[in-house]
Amino acid sequence: MRLVHIRRWLYLALEEQKGSDLAKCLNRCLLLLIVINVCVVVAESEYRIYQAYALSFQWFEIFSVGVFTLEYLVRAWVCVESNHRNLQYPIRSRGRYLLSPMAVVDLIAILPFYLSFFVVGLDLRVLRSLRLLRLLKLTRYSQSLGLLVAVLRQEADNLVSALFILCMLILLSATGIYLAEGHIQPDEFGSIPRALWWSAVTVATVGYGDVVPQTLVGKVFSGTIIVTGIAVAALPAAILASGMINELKRRRENFRFELVRAMENGKLDFGGLRYLEKMRVKIGISRADARLVFEEVKQETRLQTYTHCPYCSQPIMVKHPPGHIHVSPTKQSPKS
Amino acid sequence: MRLVHIRRWLYLALEEQKGSDLAKCLNRCLLLLIVINVCVVVAESEYRIYQAYALSFQWFEIFSVGVFTLEYLVRAWVCVESNHRNLQYPIRSRGRYLLSPMAVVDLIAILPFYLSFFVVGLDLRVLRSLRLLRLLKLTRYSQSLGLLVAVLRQEADNLVSALFILCMLILLSATGIYLAEGHIQPDEFGSIPRALWWSAVTVATVGYGDVVPQTLVGKVFSGTIIVTGIAVAALPAAILASGMINELKRRRENFRFELVRAMENGKLDFGGLRYLEKMRVKIGISRADARLVFEEVKQETRLQTYTHCPYCSQPIMVKHPPGHIHVSPTKQSPKS
Amino acid sequence: MRLVHIRRWLYLALEEQKGSDLAKCLNRCLLLLIVINVCVVVAESEYRIYQAYALSFQWFEIFSVGVFTLEYLVRAWVCVESNHRNLQYPIRSRGRYLLSPMAVVDLIAILPFYLSFFVVGLDLRVLRSLRLLRLLKLTRYSQSLGLLVAVLRQEADNLVSALFILCMLILLSATGIYLAEGHIQPDEFGSIPRALWWSAVTVATVGYGDVVPQTLVGKVFSGTIIVTGIAVAALPAAILASGMINELKRRRENFRFELVRAMENGKLDFGGLRYLEKMRVKIGISRADARLVFEEVKQETRLQTYTHCPYCSQPIMVKHPPGHIHVSPTKQSPKS
Amino acid sequence: MRLVHIRRWLYLALEEQKGSDLAKCLNRCLLLLIVINVCVVVAESEYRIYQAYALSFQWFEIFSVGVFTLEYLVRAWVCVESNHRNLQYPIRSRGRYLLSPMAVVDLIAILPFYLSFFVVGLDLRVLRSLRLLRLLKLTRYSQSLGLLVAVLRQEADNLVSALFILCMLILLSATGIYLAEGHIQPDEFGSIPRALWWSAVTVATVGYGDVVPQTLVGKVFSGTIIVTGIAVAALPAAILASGMINELKRRRENFRFELVRAMENGKLDFGGLRYLEKMRVKIGISRADARLVFEEVKQETRLQTYTHCPYCSQPIMVKHPPGHIHVSPTKQSPKS
Repeated sequence: MRLVHIRRWLYLALEEQKGSDLAKCLNRCLLLLIVINVCVVVAESEYRIYQAYALSFQWFEIFSVGVFTLEYLVRAWVCVESNHRNLQYPIRSRGRYLLSPMAVVDLIAILPFYLSFFVVGLDLRVLRSLRLLRLLKLTRYSQSLGLLVAVLRQEADNLVSALFILCMLILLSATGIYLAEGHIQPDEFGSIPRALWWSAVTVATVGYGDVVPQTLVGKVFSGTIIVTGIAVAALPAAILASGMINELKRRRENFRFELVRAMENGKLDFGGLRYLEKMRVKIGISRADARLVFEEVKQETRLQTYTHCPYCSQPIMVKHPPGHIHVSPTKQSPKS
Repeated sequence: MRLVHIRRWLYLALEEQKGSDLAKCLNRCLLLLIVINVCVVVAESEYRIYQAYALSFQWFEIFSVGVFTLEYLVRAWVCVESNHRNLQYPIRSRGRYLLSPMAVVDLIAILPFYLSFFVVGLDLRVLRSLRLLRLLKLTRYSQSLGLLVAVLRQEADNLVSALFILCMLILLSATGIYLAEGHIQPDEFGSIPRALWWSAVTVATVGYGDVVPQTLVGKVFSGTIIVTGIAVAALPAAILASGMINELKRRRENFRFELVRAMENGKLDFGGLRYLEKMRVKIGISRADARLVFEEVKQETRLQTYTHCPYCSQPIMVKHPPGHIHVSPTKQSPKS
Repeated sequence: MRLVHIRRWLYLALEEQKGSDLAKCLNRCLLLLIVINVCVVVAESEYRIYQAYALSFQWFEIFSVGVFTLEYLVRAWVCVESNHRNLQYPIRSRGRYLLSPMAVVDLIAILPFYLSFFVVGLDLRVLRSLRLLRLLKLTRYSQSLGLLVAVLRQEADNLVSALFILCMLILLSATGIYLAEGHIQPDEFGSIPRALWWSAVTVATVGYGDVVPQTLVGKVFSGTIIVTGIAVAALPAAILASGMINELKRRRENFRFELVRAMENGKLDFGGLRYLEKMRVKIGISRADARLVFEEVKQETRLQTYTHCPYCSQPIMVKHPPGHIHVSPTKQSPKS
Repeated sequence: MRLVHIRRWLYLALEEQKGSDLAKCLNRCLLLLIVINVCVVVAESEYRIYQAYALSFQWFEIFSVGVFTLEYLVRAWVCVESNHRNLQYPIRSRGRYLLSPMAVVDLIAILPFYLSFFVVGLDLRVLRSLRLLRLLKLTRYSQSLGLLVAVLRQEADNLVSALFILCMLILLSATGIYLAEGHIQPDEFGSIPRALWWSAVTVATVGYGDVVPQTLVGKVFSGTIIVTGIAVAALPAAILASGMINELKRRRENFRFELVRAMENGKLDFGGLRYLEKMRVKIGISRADARLVFEEVKQETRLQTYTHCPYCSQPIMVKHPPGHIHVSPTKQSPKS
């Protein structure tokens, strides 16, 4: 029986990130450990530093892999608490959890370490660098990061198309410069693959300047490419902007539905507001937006309020359509 | 008779990209062939690689041109299936199809090959590079690419104007730097045409660094140009963003009309939903947006629901205006 | 009497850019002349070219200045046709016109030439370059350019503020690098004014690479500046995007009002549509947007259509509120 | 008694920036002094200039610090005028004011000077540069700057997340290039910390070109990084754009509520309009937007206007819901 309580507590602490101070502290520690890990990997790559602290680095690695492994197992254990159906079918739900992105990320964070035992002859530098993927574990701890990721996923198709158009432009400009200057700078523009480096650097407006067209034709051509490149390179910004606006609009709508439902009975008591606040955080919109939605709903419902019957001044009792604030008849009595 | 069936099947397979697995496979193969072609052209331009596989390259070219020619002819043959009117006037409709952008692209993909026979003394490198235009055939196979192209076409005027403003800025900055540093770096800034290269590279924030102002006046001037350039270079992004938002809004509206029409009879049966899903794909909006529209329509129609007559409580039978979900009177009976 | 007709015709031809083919041709020629002028100025600045064709350049200059002067005078003459009030007070309206931006631009286009006679000892190169300002005369001939200019003017304050923030960032980063590397690269970072060049080039992501921090501190500092610079450099794009969306929204609203007014009498006859099309062009929105507005108005007015009286099925004659399409009673007869 | 009047006047002049010409002039002077200060700091850093005018620089510094100190004290004295509650609790409200951002900025502007007395052995160059923070005092004087700051604060979380994603990309690309070219260019890419400089410069599309990958692997890798970097670097622009649009929408809504309230009694008299204009400036939206909101409200209220009773044609006197323009019955009389 107590085991279930522990599991429940761990689930709330780790997945929902709520609970007592102990839970908060637990999350903080995990967060800290990830950050330290990243710093260690970065520092470690500097040979002199590695020389000095090789041993401590190794011990720290073992320690943190141990912690992450434990975390991974615990999460796999407690995931069934997410909802009732999962409690009934623990095996299946655990399987589903282990295939979820976050779980895979957790696995990737620890896998390289264990692989290094079984698989021999792996490049150490690669193995160490792979630890940087532990960075991805951070995505679990940020609210607004979720919004960006949601937008990026939502607009994935459009972004891919935009980058595809970009690549087409890069390829065409590489071909053009190859035709224009291939014979003058054979090493840089002697073939399309060679010219690709220049065109990628140019279209993306990075412009290292290590390779630069020199003939008049080449300069005129790349000038046109540069100017048109601006329009094409602006596509991702446009896509993400409209995606962001849509996503926020969607969330506001969702919050609006919650709000309207909570208003059904015409007045918002303290409990209702607490519930709405929770929904606001869950849906993930800013306080300002929530207030805006609230004002709008109030406004429109007021505009919809029915008046009294024009003949007999008795109030017309109508079943309030959703989004209606019940207004006491006295407030509505006609001027007559 | 069977010929008509084949034509119908080919039309669905090639133009609508729907049908049996065989149709899917057919499209996949064409897609693959295009990609391979592009890779070949790119690789071919590298002289050593060309040396090694010249013959196989030629055979592959002949093969793929054959396939594309066949595809071109088949498409010209089946295009009449698009709608009934075209079936009645096959000649005219085929003519119209052959002038459509996609058909022209298909033609461009194969034309260079045939030209190389009749026209003599063409630069081989140019001819080979022209094959890269086969890349454009890919545009047929992407849904979201259509959205971007639609936005780009919609906003073409504004984009041209923005690039025109950009070019004006480039020209003016070239003049300024020519006046400021023309006498110091005569080779780079000795005349406006020469200065254009620097100003284009600068305003587009590419900044190769092969040409850089050296005097104080020149640096101050180009500093101001750089800062103002940021605002001007931001125009295309702004145009595309607003264009994207408008385009999506338009599509949502169109889907909304479809939805409202499908709701006329007050309830959505399975067929209606299947139809809507088809429309959604055809109009080209994301599932999330479709759901949002659906919720909005439901919401607003609910808010519009008529109540009972205030005198006799019998339900008022009104001809539901479009966008009305018929609600059974029982649900509406007044509280009294 | 005939003089008035000529003036009328010239006004329509030059200002409204409408009228017979002759009027179109006239505008085309003026347009062409401007473009040629710009090309000439650009080519002229190249010394060798100037050497070769000095005389013809001078004659062309005299010719075009003559034409532009004539145009200027004619516009000043015909401007009174713009509306009736101006016809009554010709002097005042002409004065007002001469102070309008477009008229000033026309003046600037010809002034330098005449100045060169009275004022002596002016730098020829500067004088010639000033002719480039004739480029501004083009703004009169583009519809969508007007939109961009409107947005830029609308958002001028915000853009200035954004560039002000940008300049603050540039100044602060210059100070930082001056403190970090001033003693190592005294020529480049020896003082804030010197460091400004680097920081402007860096924050604007131009990155010539002629000046680059070398110490660890300098690199860390400029790394943070670069990353934060991305966010600040994104402000203009954001401002312009929202400005563009607002401007288009405003125009749609204006068109909507026109549409609603034209619908007052419940149906749109051919004349009404012609009028709307004229308004659409005048307000300056795309056909697609106009159609969208039209659909919306139809939709909402349909939703507002009153039904018949539920008891006696006689149609309720209501004064149609604006935005009402009068629907024939037969279409509305209740199901009963 | 008169002291209170002075305080009131100073409050209006300094905080609300309104009042007589004297008040305007006072603000102008303070503004000017800040700008001069900045210029002085910049010029001072150039050693030769400092040599020439060292003394006058010092006197000017003392003078301006004196003025700013006075300003700081005065502001601390008058802040209680902001509203009535503060007048009752002067101590607490002053304390709250001294902790407000603007007050802290004012303090920072003068603190370094006084610190230089008590703390010994501070780097003079650093101290002098700190004066640049007086630039921040300017933020008080711009209306539209407030908008941008509001947007930046509103979207702070999202921006931080976007920059976090950017940093992740920078870190990963640094790791990749370190693995790819670490052994070829040990000085530049020998370790992740060293590679960070290159990847930051590249992902931000600055591209100095002082460090450039040379192997094929390195170029292919950084090519992909560059292309993906465009999408990630577009995030801030997207966030700010949507934030800007939301902020403006929110402000329009607020203005709309003000407008609706002012319309309650059905007509806008001159006083109401003056009040609305004041609100418009206070809320901070452009005239064009205000006009748009006004039109919308008028439009919608017109659409909501009740008609006459369908049976007896006597006007139905309804208590006008908010946002209703009272229309005289005569205007509404039915056609019958």
